[in-house]
Amino acid sequence: MNLTRTSKKYLRYIVPSLLLGPERTKEILTTSPNESIIRKDAEATQITVYDYNEKEINEHELTSIKESFSFKVNNHVTWINVDGIKKNDVEIICDYYDIHPLLTEDILSLHQRPKMDEVENVLFCLLNMLYFNEKKKIVEQEQVSVALGKDFVITFQEDPERDVFNPIREKLKQSHSKVRQRGADYLCYAMLDLIVDNYFHVLEKVGERIEEVEEEIIHERTKRSLAHINQLRKELIVLKRNIAPVRDLIAGIIRSESDLLQDRTTKYFKDVHDHIIQAYDLSENYRDIILSMQDLYINNINLRMNEVMKVMAIVTCLLAPATVIGGIFGMNFDIIPTAHNAWGFYTAVGLMLLIPVGMLFIFKQRGWF
Amino acid sequence: MNLTRTSKKYLRYIVPSLLLGPERTKEILTTSPNESIIRKDAEATQITVYDYNEKEINEHELTSIKESFSFKVNNHVTWINVDGIKKNDVEIICDYYDIHPLLTEDILSLHQRPKMDEVENVLFCLLNMLYFNEKKKIVEQEQVSVALGKDFVITFQEDPERDVFNPIREKLKQSHSKVRQRGADYLCYAMLDLIVDNYFHVLEKVGERIEEVEEEIIHERTKRSLAHINQLRKELIVLKRNIAPVRDLIAGIIRSESDLLQDRTTKYFKDVHDHIIQAYDLSENYRDIILSMQDLYINNINLRMNEVMKVMAIVTCLLAPATVIGGIFGMNFDIIPTAHNAWGFYTAVGLMLLIPVGMLFIFKQRGWF
Amino acid sequence: MNLTRTSKKYLRYIVPSLLLGPERTKEILTTSPNESIIRKDAEATQITVYDYNEKEINEHELTSIKESFSFKVNNHVTWINVDGIKKNDVEIICDYYDIHPLLTEDILSLHQRPKMDEVENVLFCLLNMLYFNEKKKIVEQEQVSVALGKDFVITFQEDPERDVFNPIREKLKQSHSKVRQRGADYLCYAMLDLIVDNYFHVLEKVGERIEEVEEEIIHERTKRSLAHINQLRKELIVLKRNIAPVRDLIAGIIRSESDLLQDRTTKYFKDVHDHIIQAYDLSENYRDIILSMQDLYINNINLRMNEVMKVMAIVTCLLAPATVIGGIFGMNFDIIPTAHNAWGFYTAVGLMLLIPVGMLFIFKQRGWF
Amino acid sequence: MNLTRTSKKYLRYIVPSLLLGPERTKEILTTSPNESIIRKDAEATQITVYDYNEKEINEHELTSIKESFSFKVNNHVTWINVDGIKKNDVEIICDYYDIHPLLTEDILSLHQRPKMDEVENVLFCLLNMLYFNEKKKIVEQEQVSVALGKDFVITFQEDPERDVFNPIREKLKQSHSKVRQRGADYLCYAMLDLIVDNYFHVLEKVGERIEEVEEEIIHERTKRSLAHINQLRKELIVLKRNIAPVRDLIAGIIRSESDLLQDRTTKYFKDVHDHIIQAYDLSENYRDIILSMQDLYINNINLRMNEVMKVMAIVTCLLAPATVIGGIFGMNFDIIPTAHNAWGFYTAVGLMLLIPVGMLFIFKQRGWF
Amino acid sequence: MNLTRTSKKYLRYIVPSLLLGPERTKEILTTSPNESIIRKDAEATQITVYDYNEKEINEHELTSIKESFSFKVNNHVTWINVDGIKKNDVEIICDYYDIHPLLTEDILSLHQRPKMDEVENVLFCLLNMLYFNEKKKIVEQEQVSVALGKDFVITFQEDPERDVFNPIREKLKQSHSKVRQRGADYLCYAMLDLIVDNYFHVLEKVGERIEEVEEEIIHERTKRSLAHINQLRKELIVLKRNIAPVRDLIAGIIRSESDLLQDRTTKYFKDVHDHIIQAYDLSENYRDIILSMQDLYINNINLRMNEVMKVMAIVTCLLAPATVIGGIFGMNFDIIPTAHNAWGFYTAVGLMLLIPVGMLFIFKQRGWF
Repeated sequence: MNLTRTSKKYLRYIVPSLLLGPERTKEILTTSPNESIIRKDAEATQITVYDYNEKEINEHELTSIKESFSFKVNNHVTWINVDGIKKNDVEIICDYYDIHPLLTEDILSLHQRPKMDEVENVLFCLLNMLYFNEKKKIVEQEQVSVALGKDFVITFQEDPERDVFNPIREKLKQSHSKVRQRGADYLCYAMLDLIVDNYFHVLEKVGERIEEVEEEIIHERTKRSLAHINQLRKELIVLKRNIAPVRDLIAGIIRSESDLLQDRTTKYFKDVHDHIIQAYDLSENYRDIILSMQDLYINNINLRMNEVMKVMAIVTCLLAPATVIGGIFGMNFDIIPTAHNAWGFYTAVGLMLLIPVGMLFIFKQRGWF
Repeated sequence: MNLTRTSKKYLRYIVPSLLLGPERTKEILTTSPNESIIRKDAEATQITVYDYNEKEINEHELTSIKESFSFKVNNHVTWINVDGIKKNDVEIICDYYDIHPLLTEDILSLHQRPKMDEVENVLFCLLNMLYFNEKKKIVEQEQVSVALGKDFVITFQEDPERDVFNPIREKLKQSHSKVRQRGADYLCYAMLDLIVDNYFHVLEKVGERIEEVEEEIIHERTKRSLAHINQLRKELIVLKRNIAPVRDLIAGIIRSESDLLQDRTTKYFKDVHDHIIQAYDLSENYRDIILSMQDLYINNINLRMNEVMKVMAIVTCLLAPATVIGGIFGMNFDIIPTAHNAWGFYTAVGLMLLIPVGMLFIFKQRGWF
Repeated sequence: MNLTRTSKKYLRYIVPSLLLGPERTKEILTTSPNESIIRKDAEATQITVYDYNEKEINEHELTSIKESFSFKVNNHVTWINVDGIKKNDVEIICDYYDIHPLLTEDILSLHQRPKMDEVENVLFCLLNMLYFNEKKKIVEQEQVSVALGKDFVITFQEDPERDVFNPIREKLKQSHSKVRQRGADYLCYAMLDLIVDNYFHVLEKVGERIEEVEEEIIHERTKRSLAHINQLRKELIVLKRNIAPVRDLIAGIIRSESDLLQDRTTKYFKDVHDHIIQAYDLSENYRDIILSMQDLYINNINLRMNEVMKVMAIVTCLLAPATVIGGIFGMNFDIIPTAHNAWGFYTAVGLMLLIPVGMLFIFKQRGWF
Repeated sequence: MNLTRTSKKYLRYIVPSLLLGPERTKEILTTSPNESIIRKDAEATQITVYDYNEKEINEHELTSIKESFSFKVNNHVTWINVDGIKKNDVEIICDYYDIHPLLTEDILSLHQRPKMDEVENVLFCLLNMLYFNEKKKIVEQEQVSVALGKDFVITFQEDPERDVFNPIREKLKQSHSKVRQRGADYLCYAMLDLIVDNYFHVLEKVGERIEEVEEEIIHERTKRSLAHINQLRKELIVLKRNIAPVRDLIAGIIRSESDLLQDRTTKYFKDVHDHIIQAYDLSENYRDIILSMQDLYINNINLRMNEVMKVMAIVTCLLAPATVIGGIFGMNFDIIPTAHNAWGFYTAVGLMLLIPVGMLFIFKQRGWF
Repeated sequence: MNLTRTSKKYLRYIVPSLLLGPERTKEILTTSPNESIIRKDAEATQITVYDYNEKEINEHELTSIKESFSFKVNNHVTWINVDGIKKNDVEIICDYYDIHPLLTEDILSLHQRPKMDEVENVLFCLLNMLYFNEKKKIVEQEQVSVALGKDFVITFQEDPERDVFNPIREKLKQSHSKVRQRGADYLCYAMLDLIVDNYFHVLEKVGERIEEVEEEIIHERTKRSLAHINQLRKELIVLKRNIAPVRDLIAGIIRSESDLLQDRTTKYFKDVHDHIIQAYDLSENYRDIILSMQDLYINNINLRMNEVMKVMAIVTCLLAPATVIGGIFGMNFDIIPTAHNAWGFYTAVGLMLLIPVGMLFIFKQRGWF
């Protein structure tokens, strides 16, 4: 049998689009936290430095990674942002700023689990910025590494096209903003807060998608609902995989009692912790709602099936006696009772009508309608 | 095919009412603990101050938020209740009463997870008052913030229409009531106790709704039971989302060992803690019962389906031989055995009756009835 | 359609008895740990006092609660048992024996979660005695409060008809019994041990009910098995709700290191703790067995359904060709091949028999029997 | 309807044997850790004493329990093994060897949960030896109590027929064996190790049974697979009930820091702990595999059902038009078109064949084969 | 009935290959951590010694186990690798290098749970190297034991054919590599890191297999998807069984504070710990995806079944009236109305067409298409 032709019809039930079947599963399942798989170098990197204190702020666009060396020792807070990961550049700057080789490896790795570490006076966070791709209806992630040292923050982002930290840039330019008035630890907090806040935007988008699918199911707008539910379950796996470890990450920062964190900043991290817990709770709720929706869908399909089957059963039952009666009087015997009577035909047809009426009465009593 | 017409019939299975489908999901899924989404200012706010000690009590209706400043330092316990959230007002009063800007943000936020915090000599609780909307059969929530300071309690409520704390007002007016004889911490306890007690009212209402739906299922009063079960599952998500974090909130207060709490008040908070744990247990029990009810419903539908299908199968089987016999003797061959016999017709009809009787006997032996 | 008539037939599947449907759910779901719902005073109360030491024992039947005051200070261990809760009486005795008002409230409350508290030199336990109502096949509960003080135990029971502590009375009368030779803490242990031991009796009864239902399912004695399983799941909710918190209660007593408990009594409480953990494990096992039984039932029903449907499918298939052949030769054409042959009829009938035999052969090969 | 006859046929699906239905459930559910249910005294007891040190070993067969008294104080390690529980004997020996009455009660009890206790210089373990009954395919248990005191171990077994500790006896007879060279604590370890090792034998047997049932399911050797799966789930409950508490038991011994245990023995108990954890993990894996097997079975049954129903649907559909055509030309109208044509019959029959072929073509395109 | 013939057809649904049915279950379920089951000695063993410090490295191929004795005391780091387990050899070397007999037993055992132990100045790890057998599509495991002592590491592998540690050998040969510059603890870390990194390779392969099966399900390439899903569930059990305990193993090393581990090595073990947690999370995600895939498969099959059944129901219903009408006018009564009219036949056939059209209209309105 030609299977490709066969499946054409049924594909509509379970293939949401060419991009969202096993290809998405592949993306989700890919893993390589080990060194051996080397990240392809970004084609271009963009390095910007913000050097600021309460009074002034200087923005520098660097052309070479080595230009960043001059900012290590000064009285300003320095934020070096590297957009686009090139192995060489990362190793040079990490080496200069005393970031442990293991952390450098983490920055260079792909598909890392969000983690937090404090090694030799550097507080290191690695987590994923999440975006919701409106077109593909999937959750995309970009790995962000934040290294907080004495009076400096170095951040690494994968995608030079989009910059996660733009809102912080805006705030830095305003001299009265808190981020300007406080130290590097507050800058680090502001970054984590921004990323976690963004999780809620993504959750909201996924939430909207859940509503859409529920709408679809209730109004039966499409036969692909099963595929859509399946896809949503995958996206939730992505969400939870990114959100759950960030709870430990932030809790780890709060517990670390690092000298890099001022006491007055701790309560800000606690606030982020509250948010990330809420994000996790939400993703749990989403899961409950999706499972409940799947139950609703399947049960609804079954109820309809039942209805159709019941009608079929009843029609078949009601018409069966008529067929038999027709057969009886259609037999070619010489002697058929009432065959020569004028009212014979009408009696037979009458029986054909009366018996179903009687059956209907019985069925109603038994409650089959 | 016209889907909107198609769905008309089936909508009755899964659409409980226009208000309770995906719209309810949307409400549940909406989240915005971040600053960026700004709460719309209430149209009107109502600010009342109760200034009391064991001997006297004064009630003031304020027209401007700044009138509340005068109550900060006096020997009385002061309760300032703000009904309706206006960003400006909240910021002014919080600033004056030394409530940390992060807490002020929490008060102004929407859809916050219940939380407790102790920042600079203010014990802050944010939780949701729950109501059961009898008409829509849904659980509604109103965010309540309670800030306990030295000799004052400031509360913020969203809805100026309904006042959560009316029963406390009543008690305050009675000079012999405990709440009058004790300090601000007892007032704070009384508020939390009131809110938690109200959870039981809501649980009871949801419980009544569960009974209604179980009644529906057993007596098959409606075809929308599936929708009702689905909706109850959503309401339980709302309940658990509000109740679960309050456990931590109250446990946090007990553990805080804050100077604001007198030793003799602790056991009252422990009592509230016992209650909130019971509320949580109950919501777990409700979930078990709803899932068990869903099983009952689906299995019951299937049992009925089985019954109908079995009867159909049997009727079809019993009548099938008759149809064949009718067909055999209805064939237009010249020579049909017994066709010219007087008893031919009766033999054929007799067979039509005897064969089903034999089949019935076999079916009974096999236990298909 | 008249639904009440309709449901008559199906009620037998899911209504075990008028007492065990939603009414039971209602009982389970009812909750009111708050003050506002006031317990109706018992019509009669029975107050007995046992005043004993190693050498002598005196039993007093009190007519007024105030007569109990005289037992507070003496060198004997005093057990005051109040059967039937009257608000006034409870408040008077609790006040006199320095039981904290919050505990008094607990005693007066309904549907409390089992709890343990140590307030101002009184160790307080509230838990439920369970009974299995053989007639209704449900688990009934009676709230028992035990207050252990210096040299006294005060107990409160709801139902004056049945006395939980009769076996202890018997032992008290024997001068050589341990309960006589030890202090009030041992008396308290004996009470908890009695209650926990009784849980096993109830578990055993529920276990017997589970066996009955399993027996029903396997021998298909009734069509109400689904209802019985559903009911058992409800009873297990009641059991777990009562047993689970008692674990914490007893662990709380062991951890409390109260002066009221002698060191040598601790190991007795540890023994009770072992028992309650076993009771909890058992209720978990029961749940597993019930869920496994439900799977068995549903799958069994489906297997039977499959069997019936398969026979129907085969009979229909086997007879269908005969009907068609009958139809072919029943057509009123002038020229029908073989119609005038002597063997025409027999050929046709032969075909009617041969084709099904051939089909049967194919079906057997495909393994459909 | 005669139900006993009815069920004959279906019993084969769900009754594995007369011994393994509700009777097994009854055995599993029976519980009585309380005193009230008294164990029936064994008909015969066998008391053996091994008195040994590194150099010599003496074996004594006692006729009366009191003969064991003489071994209490000597420089040898003494192992008293009591096979068969008689209340009187147990109380006498426990009393003499200072075993606390609560522990004596535990030894005498039935269906105890495995537990460990240290009371007044006696380390007490109660656990169950498991056997797999090859004939009944069930897990059997025998309660074993081990009391470790200063230089003595007293063990109590239920069944005098089979002796759990035979392998230890063998080792004791070899003067170079570790058990001879070390103290009573090592003897106690050897006993627990033996029992835990035996759990793996039982697990292996249950594992073989799981394979058998999987084999059955895949090759459809029997219709009782559902019953077998159900039974395996019950046996797993028995296994987990016995294994899970032993983890705590052994962990309790390691944590106890009892003077009875030498430091160098601790690592042996840690080894047993590793084993018992592995046994628990395995029982979890077994559960997963059984549930996965049940899914496979049910889904497989449904796939077959689908196949049969699809063929039936198609045959019915294909033959239906032929029946109608036969009916049309079988009508007794005077004027039937083509009725008098020579090719009329062949046209009709041709239509009967062509229409199904056309339908087949459509069905294939829709992918229904 | 001949069952072997019967099952031929259905085997294709659930037998993936002769190697992957119950045989695989058997492999998974086999357990024997106890001494009694003795591992068969390897036919050949290969013993290699690497003796190195920062400056030089010597590789020795030993012919007898006793040659390894000479490396115990020197200033070099010594790695003795034993490929192939012979009881005698293992006991000799372990005895000489002061590895505790209990650990020697572990090395000799089969199917051990991964574990870590520190006994008398030897840090011992036992875990499984995992491979994915591309041909059989199963996860294979090889037990690896690593004993870290003062300046030496002894490793034991089961399979002399394949050597797990080849990459480490490569690195050892490079004098500038970290493993050369650091001590035995770093060598031990490198080994664990290698094994854990390999888990990701296996996870990736299993992930690819999941994609393949999802592809199969969506494009319905085979009827064995159920078997493939079932098999994947088994492989995941193997994965989790191996990965889960390694978390504790590595955490145990980090917590051990052994003198054998230098401070600067700890962060490397923390890095491995991060990886193993990620591996565990991934295996959890895999489980979710497989279960979601199974849901998709079953629901998809049911949707198709529904579609087929609906068409059958409709065709049957539409044709049933035609059959009855044919029967009515086929009856052999003398007087049949319209029988002698010219338009009688056409009226009847017209009715046969009109009634289904009317039914179709009703069905469409009810939404059954």
